[in-house]
Amino acid sequence: MEPLRSYTAGRWRSPADEGTALYDAVTGGELARLSTAGIDRAAALAHGREVGGPALRELTFHQRAALLKSLASHLREHRQELYDLSASTGATRGDSKFDVDGGIGVLFSYSSKGRRELPNSTVHVDGGTEPLGKQGTFLGQHIATPLRGVAVQINAFNFPVWGPLEKLAPAFVAGVPTLIKPAEQTAHLTHRLVELIVESGILPEGSVQLLCGNAGDLLDHLTEQDLLSFTGSAATAQRIRAQDNVVRQSVRFNAEADSLNCSVLGPDATRDTAEFDLFVRQLVTEMTVKAGQKCTAVRRAFVPEGRVDEVVGAVADRLSGVAVGDPRNPEVDMGALADLEQREEVRRGLKGLLEAGRLVHGDPWQPFEPVGADYEQGAFVPPMLLRCDEPEQPQPHEIEVFGPVATVLPYRDAEHAVELANRGGGSLVGSVVSGDTEFVREVVLGAASRHGRMLVLNGSDAEESTGHGSPLPQLVHGGPGRAGGGEEMAGIRGVLHHMQRTAVQADPDTLTELTGQWFPGSTRTTTDAHPFRKHLEQLRVGDSVVGGPRGITAEDVRHFADFTGDEFYAHTDEAAAAANPFFGGLVAHGYLVVSLAAGLFVSPEPGPVLANYGLENLRFLTPTYPGDEITVTLTAKRITPRHNADYGEVRWDADVTNQHGESVAKYDVLTLVAKEGATSE
Amino acid sequence: MEPLRSYTAGRWRSPADEGTALYDAVTGGELARLSTAGIDRAAALAHGREVGGPALRELTFHQRAALLKSLASHLREHRQELYDLSASTGATRGDSKFDVDGGIGVLFSYSSKGRRELPNSTVHVDGGTEPLGKQGTFLGQHIATPLRGVAVQINAFNFPVWGPLEKLAPAFVAGVPTLIKPAEQTAHLTHRLVELIVESGILPEGSVQLLCGNAGDLLDHLTEQDLLSFTGSAATAQRIRAQDNVVRQSVRFNAEADSLNCSVLGPDATRDTAEFDLFVRQLVTEMTVKAGQKCTAVRRAFVPEGRVDEVVGAVADRLSGVAVGDPRNPEVDMGALADLEQREEVRRGLKGLLEAGRLVHGDPWQPFEPVGADYEQGAFVPPMLLRCDEPEQPQPHEIEVFGPVATVLPYRDAEHAVELANRGGGSLVGSVVSGDTEFVREVVLGAASRHGRMLVLNGSDAEESTGHGSPLPQLVHGGPGRAGGGEEMAGIRGVLHHMQRTAVQADPDTLTELTGQWFPGSTRTTTDAHPFRKHLEQLRVGDSVVGGPRGITAEDVRHFADFTGDEFYAHTDEAAAAANPFFGGLVAHGYLVVSLAAGLFVSPEPGPVLANYGLENLRFLTPTYPGDEITVTLTAKRITPRHNADYGEVRWDADVTNQHGESVAKYDVLTLVAKEGATSE
Repeated sequence: MEPLRSYTAGRWRSPADEGTALYDAVTGGELARLSTAGIDRAAALAHGREVGGPALRELTFHQRAALLKSLASHLREHRQELYDLSASTGATRGDSKFDVDGGIGVLFSYSSKGRRELPNSTVHVDGGTEPLGKQGTFLGQHIATPLRGVAVQINAFNFPVWGPLEKLAPAFVAGVPTLIKPAEQTAHLTHRLVELIVESGILPEGSVQLLCGNAGDLLDHLTEQDLLSFTGSAATAQRIRAQDNVVRQSVRFNAEADSLNCSVLGPDATRDTAEFDLFVRQLVTEMTVKAGQKCTAVRRAFVPEGRVDEVVGAVADRLSGVAVGDPRNPEVDMGALADLEQREEVRRGLKGLLEAGRLVHGDPWQPFEPVGADYEQGAFVPPMLLRCDEPEQPQPHEIEVFGPVATVLPYRDAEHAVELANRGGGSLVGSVVSGDTEFVREVVLGAASRHGRMLVLNGSDAEESTGHGSPLPQLVHGGPGRAGGGEEMAGIRGVLHHMQRTAVQADPDTLTELTGQWFPGSTRTTTDAHPFRKHLEQLRVGDSVVGGPRGITAEDVRHFADFTGDEFYAHTDEAAAAANPFFGGLVAHGYLVVSLAAGLFVSPEPGPVLANYGLENLRFLTPTYPGDEITVTLTAKRITPRHNADYGEVRWDADVTNQHGESVAKYDVLTLVAKEGATSE
Repeated sequence: MEPLRSYTAGRWRSPADEGTALYDAVTGGELARLSTAGIDRAAALAHGREVGGPALRELTFHQRAALLKSLASHLREHRQELYDLSASTGATRGDSKFDVDGGIGVLFSYSSKGRRELPNSTVHVDGGTEPLGKQGTFLGQHIATPLRGVAVQINAFNFPVWGPLEKLAPAFVAGVPTLIKPAEQTAHLTHRLVELIVESGILPEGSVQLLCGNAGDLLDHLTEQDLLSFTGSAATAQRIRAQDNVVRQSVRFNAEADSLNCSVLGPDATRDTAEFDLFVRQLVTEMTVKAGQKCTAVRRAFVPEGRVDEVVGAVADRLSGVAVGDPRNPEVDMGALADLEQREEVRRGLKGLLEAGRLVHGDPWQPFEPVGADYEQGAFVPPMLLRCDEPEQPQPHEIEVFGPVATVLPYRDAEHAVELANRGGGSLVGSVVSGDTEFVREVVLGAASRHGRMLVLNGSDAEESTGHGSPLPQLVHGGPGRAGGGEEMAGIRGVLHHMQRTAVQADPDTLTELTGQWFPGSTRTTTDAHPFRKHLEQLRVGDSVVGGPRGITAEDVRHFADFTGDEFYAHTDEAAAAANPFFGGLVAHGYLVVSLAAGLFVSPEPGPVLANYGLENLRFLTPTYPGDEITVTLTAKRITPRHNADYGEVRWDADVTNQHGESVAKYDVLTLVAKEGATSE
């Protein structure tokens, strides 16, 4: 059998030797061979940096997001092929969907977030502007720009599709090329995934590469602009984190390691409650999906000390109904482990756990007949439930068995549950199944600093809950300590992880030039043409219009109060207004000020400005008194053309001043503006 | 001489041996002795975790911020004492102010930011809410809670006051206790600083500890909840980063290392420009402040290739006027290096640089007469300027000489300048001195991914510029690669660095309970008492009022257009409005909708609500047509009592719906609400 090829430096490359074999988890048959002998890893990194990176940096965030969406659609069309291959890794159809659809879902999610939350340009403006001088000539602004390296991902075997895609998506939106190094056991599936990506031709060359086998000297060639992310065991994470060159170059490193995740049943959840049932069903799901080979799976189930028998009984009862066997068989609920070595690994780990507890369901040393498969050839184990009545024993909190294994442990009260949860030394996720809000509060806030994610499950949210074991692209995936100390995804945070945050100190005009966004204090351009008469393509940041002055009379205020019904005393009762600590007299409504300001800046005839869809950051800075005159200056601040529409968003800076030149109100006006030819004027 | 004591586990402790001597940088006389022999480091960490942490977590962000402010004021009163001690480290009065006033300034800054940008509670709500189901029963929300460990800081010798304080401030606001380990050369000054802090009694016991000498086995006792920050050489940063226990526990590690910072003179800056002068003066300042012992100092000065002679001449000319000597002498411009060993270190480094360039000013091997001091006893060197005409030589980009040393190198064009800047392999800061915006843009965006901070200096911002070498609490301090790969300060980002971000998935009521902030979908409480009649202490999140319905007529819209002057066609011209792609007919002004909504929710009589100071996140979601009826629901969302005022901020959720139950507009209303007894009703 020919070994799988790698895709590096622009083409598919066969290794220089025969490599090692990779076996079907179910039948034990040889599936593929793996090697990266003779493949130039330094050249792959250089290709990413010199070809992939520049190509990605040519694109805006929105353009990259649009490509991700196309890729997601392409992969969705070919998902059947990935499902089918997936069965050879021991995965049921449900497991495959979790992996394949989950991965495609991350692409869609990042595509959508990239367009909604990032500008349609190449520089991200990060956080607010810091005024660094009183005159406003010197400002501080953080910006984020893509690292000029390669995002190297060293993946785990359990999610051969989701794993590469959840890391690729934020890197790609950031503008950083990716090099994928799959785990050996399931490399053939990742290989097919990358073939589909490359065949599609959707992504720029160099933005995705594949090193299909041993990493070899890869880490020695990383520079300070590269990123390294690892998913897998805590022990390997430690070795990589401390690798000489990784340390020397301060390579940005992110680890996501298996952890001893817990689920806590609340004291309110007696046998007849929805929560009891939710807890039991969730635990069984967590044990059996992917045959428990999920870094987020529940390993420790904490239940009130008087309720251990009930829980153990209910869980064991459900586990008895779990059919184990060939995952291609639709009657099967749980497939095989990744390979026979993993089965040995599970047996070894279980021996450790048995020092502290005892098996109440399942026995990995006892052969059984898997549905439609041969126990000797496939990596089959039954789901295994342990019970440990002495929860202070160390083993359940330290030994992670990466298979369908969980231990039920008793706790006394919320404080004790927190203490036990935290013994995991840092976890990816914990769940609390309870409708007792006070208990939930104590556990969540007590254990939050040891968890990257915490799920509260109860009768109110169960119907919509996405489950303990499912990382979501919107939310942090990763946890402190044992879980690796990293953060992945979490929406745009995951994009920023691939970028350098730089504090720029400069004058406003320079900041406008650097970011493409108008900064207060920067030059305004006022011409005869009202900026509302310009289509999106003609409009430039800095284009301004000044309206006013307009006087505001006591009658205006009185009338506005009558008309709107807003008779707040500061606008209507002179004596009471005089006693107000901020006003000292009758003042105009803030709503009146912004309404009149709109009357001053608007250009009424039909034209490119289609709608005002909102306001942001409105602050009333100085009271407006009857007799004052207001003037408004409106300036185009940020222009965001939409990729797939004939209009875009324009954010305007509005500054309303009084006759003394003081700012009365400042805010951003949000409008939709048409592209040329999209509307008749 | 008695060795300096450490402050651990609640008291001052003398070491078990005599320790090693610490000498005056100027006179060479013995200043103090240092040792941590016999001091229980594990007990110090345990004390921080068990006494300091819980005490801090009892306080809200605002309470912690207020304590920081008191501490800052206290230290400011005692700053003279710190200045005086500082002279023995070789620092001039100006240098001492940079260190001491700079450190106190960071405390003030974090105090102010903590109160303005964080809630007056103990949980930080991080980023937006992620809806995870269509019915709104299951939401995702990131929260940040303090790590339950100790922030250990291992400091550099050059900023014995600023260094500890810039790290203490964000940790303290986060609710994490600090353990300070000063560098040996200047430990006596940090020792006095901590004495002042402890004597003041302002901070809770356990929140600050001092280990005055060798760190010993300190790192072996860190857990996954502790943090470790290091400032100093790149080589030591690497050693600490890869320390066994630090790696095993995934200890959150932050390094800030000396780097080869550059300053680039723009092509526009000819001899007669302001920029030429700014560049020269800044370079001389960077070389001489703290005798060049600043990790942010300019080491590489890039100038257009035809202008090297001019620049070298002008810089050397100014350097000739720099008086070196006893920093206590007011005529002295530059003091001594930290100790004689540092002088040897500078000489060694300079030998390396001389392989690529030549000295054009200053010679560290040539004895001279320092003003009011003895060259043999004090660690004196002159400022040293090198010139290297072959900028591709490796030494100037790799060898950092930690003293008053800089090298002038030529560049051809912007691309070349970027390429040279980036050869530093990651820097804390770079500056571009130019009024040529296109050049600035190319250099800043080209070099940003290798820099934590970039300063643009020109005629527009020079007057207010804070300078190349000054890290500011509002901005990132740290840089990639060689600079350590870390981030410090940067405003609230530095606080969050000390907290764990946890994605919480739950129903709205649970999120409200966990965070103290009202989440959409959570229970609303409507009683007879209008919430505007409640003082801050009585008001609870979830308190609501419903106003309306009120019909909006075509006459209302017409009248509002007339009255405000906002005659935008969608409100006034039926045919044109019908052609608008979003409206399809005449619509009410958004400003009219929110003005009428205020009329519906307001409680007009004088009472606890003092003012509406702004709006946030206003979005018009559905057009309002003449004939529609609107209803508004206003709900208290976030209540932020001010620590030092008789009122606080209340943020209300406003949801305006139409007769079909569709949301027409959603926004947050920002008000000031009085505490009880503060106003007469």
